Amino acid sequence: MFEELKIKVYEANMKLPEYGLVTFTWGNASAIDREKGVIVIKPSGVDYDKLSPDNMVVLDLDGNVIEGDYRPSSDTPTHIELYKSFPKIGGIVHTHSSYATSFAQAMRPIPAYGTTHADYFYGEVPCTRILSAQEIEEAYEKNTGKVIAETFKEIDENAIGGVVVANHGPFTWGKDAAEAVYFAKVLEETAKMALMTEILNPNVTPINSYILDKHYFRKHGANAYYGQKK
Amino acid sequence: MFEELKIKVYEANMKLPEYGLVTFTWGNASAIDREKGVIVIKPSGVDYDKLSPDNMVVLDLDGNVIEGDYRPSSDTPTHIELYKSFPKIGGIVHTHSSYATSFAQAMRPIPAYGTTHADYFYGEVPCTRILSAQEIEEAYEKNTGKVIAETFKEIDENAIGGVVVANHGPFTWGKDAAEAVYFAKVLEETAKMALMTEILNPNVTPINSYILDKHYFRKHGANAYYGQKK
Amino acid sequence: MFEELKIKVYEANMKLPEYGLVTFTWGNASAIDREKGVIVIKPSGVDYDKLSPDNMVVLDLDGNVIEGDYRPSSDTPTHIELYKSFPKIGGIVHTHSSYATSFAQAMRPIPAYGTTHADYFYGEVPCTRILSAQEIEEAYEKNTGKVIAETFKEIDENAIGGVVVANHGPFTWGKDAAEAVYFAKVLEETAKMALMTEILNPNVTPINSYILDKHYFRKHGANAYYGQKK
Amino acid sequence: MFEELKIKVYEANMKLPEYGLVTFTWGNASAIDREKGVIVIKPSGVDYDKLSPDNMVVLDLDGNVIEGDYRPSSDTPTHIELYKSFPKIGGIVHTHSSYATSFAQAMRPIPAYGTTHADYFYGEVPCTRILSAQEIEEAYEKNTGKVIAETFKEIDENAIGGVVVANHGPFTWGKDAAEAVYFAKVLEETAKMALMTEILNPNVTPINSYILDKHYFRKHGANAYYGQKK
Repeated sequence: MFEELKIKVYEANMKLPEYGLVTFTWGNASAIDREKGVIVIKPSGVDYDKLSPDNMVVLDLDGNVIEGDYRPSSDTPTHIELYKSFPKIGGIVHTHSSYATSFAQAMRPIPAYGTTHADYFYGEVPCTRILSAQEIEEAYEKNTGKVIAETFKEIDENAIGGVVVANHGPFTWGKDAAEAVYFAKVLEETAKMALMTEILNPNVTPINSYILDKHYFRKHGANAYYGQKK
Repeated sequence: MFEELKIKVYEANMKLPEYGLVTFTWGNASAIDREKGVIVIKPSGVDYDKLSPDNMVVLDLDGNVIEGDYRPSSDTPTHIELYKSFPKIGGIVHTHSSYATSFAQAMRPIPAYGTTHADYFYGEVPCTRILSAQEIEEAYEKNTGKVIAETFKEIDENAIGGVVVANHGPFTWGKDAAEAVYFAKVLEETAKMALMTEILNPNVTPINSYILDKHYFRKHGANAYYGQKK
Repeated sequence: MFEELKIKVYEANMKLPEYGLVTFTWGNASAIDREKGVIVIKPSGVDYDKLSPDNMVVLDLDGNVIEGDYRPSSDTPTHIELYKSFPKIGGIVHTHSSYATSFAQAMRPIPAYGTTHADYFYGEVPCTRILSAQEIEEAYEKNTGKVIAETFKEIDENAIGGVVVANHGPFTWGKDAAEAVYFAKVLEETAKMALMTEILNPNVTPINSYILDKHYFRKHGANAYYGQKK
Repeated sequence: MFEELKIKVYEANMKLPEYGLVTFTWGNASAIDREKGVIVIKPSGVDYDKLSPDNMVVLDLDGNVIEGDYRPSSDTPTHIELYKSFPKIGGIVHTHSSYATSFAQAMRPIPAYGTTHADYFYGEVPCTRILSAQEIEEAYEKNTGKVIAETFKEIDENAIGGVVVANHGPFTWGKDAAEAVYFAKVLEETAKMALMTEILNPNVTPINSYILDKHYFRKHGANAYYGQKK
């Protein structure tokens, strides 16, 4: 019944080691079928070379396992919270990729220093606040989702498909799991270049808004002209 | 009719991921046949593993597609402008390679700190000024070419086959597409070493003019003695 | 008689180049069978592509070779000292991996800047003091083990399975050789991200104790809920 | 007549790209047969994938080609000068590897910050002075050899088998071409770790002489005990 989505989520997860974004099992991808009210996610702590579409876990939006022999990723409550808060997204990825995680550990947003960034993220990729002891105690993974949603109260999550969670690492999302993986790779590359840009020019400032606009909108929206006609 | 050039442009494009210079579709190579008045360039936003000589796009110098089923690279007007401004060049490459792009984002030229640089670029590789809002609004890609040409008003583009475009990334060029790709790799390596050189010695200065002369001219011009006789 | 342990130690050693943790022969893994009172370790200075389970060296805890045609790793006395000092560990790994060794050379512990670190090490990974001339003169490798044990006088070696030895490089340990190798890779990744975190934010401080607790204990101990049920 | 040496020099050259030490043709290895009074070296500017033992070039110590259809490496006069100045060495390697070249460009010796360095180089790897305009004009490559020899007037070239040539890059040497390649890789790794060590601790100082002694002499000389008995 959920075969197609399980294959897509499996394929998205397998891209993570291929793109050099995960060490061991430190990452996960999920997708949602909003009509059926289910999400599919990677099982917890299972090696990538042992994954198959069959061991993806299907859950409802209350976190109950509907199909699958494995425990779902321990980050599942974060994914569920994000799907609830961001009504248009279809896929989510979490990694501990080196450069984006270093921004998370430094508790800094990733500034938009160039057109590579502007092609995909319409402004700086924000960093959450640190969770309180109580938030961690009560429902750590769920509150991680809540603090991401809080961070986007004044930011359009459909124009900036990613965040770094303070102390932790990046989450990215998109219209489906494949796009979320794509953004996870873009975020890592832009984080790497942002770090090097600051070493080369400690006084660098983000790009002007008109360059940001130009690059973002030549790829997105009604007037986009990058790529082939669909 | 343009088969040979399409194969060469295809091969040049395929070197970009092989040399580690592009992520996803973030790069393009082109070449010109000045007698026939055409350029051949990569199609826009097409994955490298789906490229073939057949889907290269042939255009005239007004940007009209002469042959090909795909839209040309969105950077095509930049390439055309450069072919018009630099009458001796035969090929152009654009990438978002990590280190050269970091210099572009830092809005800094790449200094000639050593003989690796001097072997290929006769002096620092310049950085353009930022385009104005009006230039971006009116004809962004074409004006990117114009600002590169402006940057080379007092520099010999045949002795320094590359530039970093502020906020954006590197362009390189040469006698054909293969040489432009070669320079794209050299630029990335010299950018990487320039960054590390500055970390190791914040007071470092560019090499003396007589070392620059020696290395450049042992590889170029009438008295070159590097490599095999042609 | 020791076949099974020799195979495990062989496999652990082979993971070191696979994980990018060793250049040439700069690393070794060992394991202990506490019932039989023997350890198995890599032979000294033998290339990884010439290793086999057969050329692993079996020694008693006084360092006498019981089985094997090769000299054991020159670091064997360090391993023996650690097995004696840390009664619950079953495997040890030593490497000169780039980032962890750089912390060792900088004579600095690796701070717990994020959850990647907290998932495996319950606090900063300490750095030993420098050995005295006399300690080096008398019994260098054995005293390297002693100075590690001294460093853990007030630290639980079962909660922090690694150390950087000043001037030298990292040692890691775990319940068996496979876990020691796993921690060697984790240490290298966390060292890399710690270095970049400090470049991005020179005033960064380690994570709060409640985040450290949360992440460590969701993977370890009676209330762990990461991964699959065993 | 020189088949054996040509094979060894060929194999040494092929290790350079395998170890990640060269881009394009930016490196060369040679060896000397002191009895026959000949050296064998890589041809100039020939791609590594087109090398074979047959196209290695054999020269006498005056630089006359004795055997071979190709021009020898343009760095041949440097190699010859070093073989004349350092009577015990049997092989030489030159590369533009990223980290060692960055030290050369920063005009800094590579300090002995740890035991990885001390295992192979008995003290800091020195940096030459810059050549004068006259030295470059008159005989650039030969004078590069002379300035290296000058740098070692008070240093034992048999205990420190490498140098960084200011503005240029590293040369390493050893008892044969294979050892020279080995040292080229060691130098690159120690240069990388030295750079990161300084980022982590700007006040770091080189290791004590007694640690340097211990590590160097456990691998070298009459009392060495690392590795297998020969």
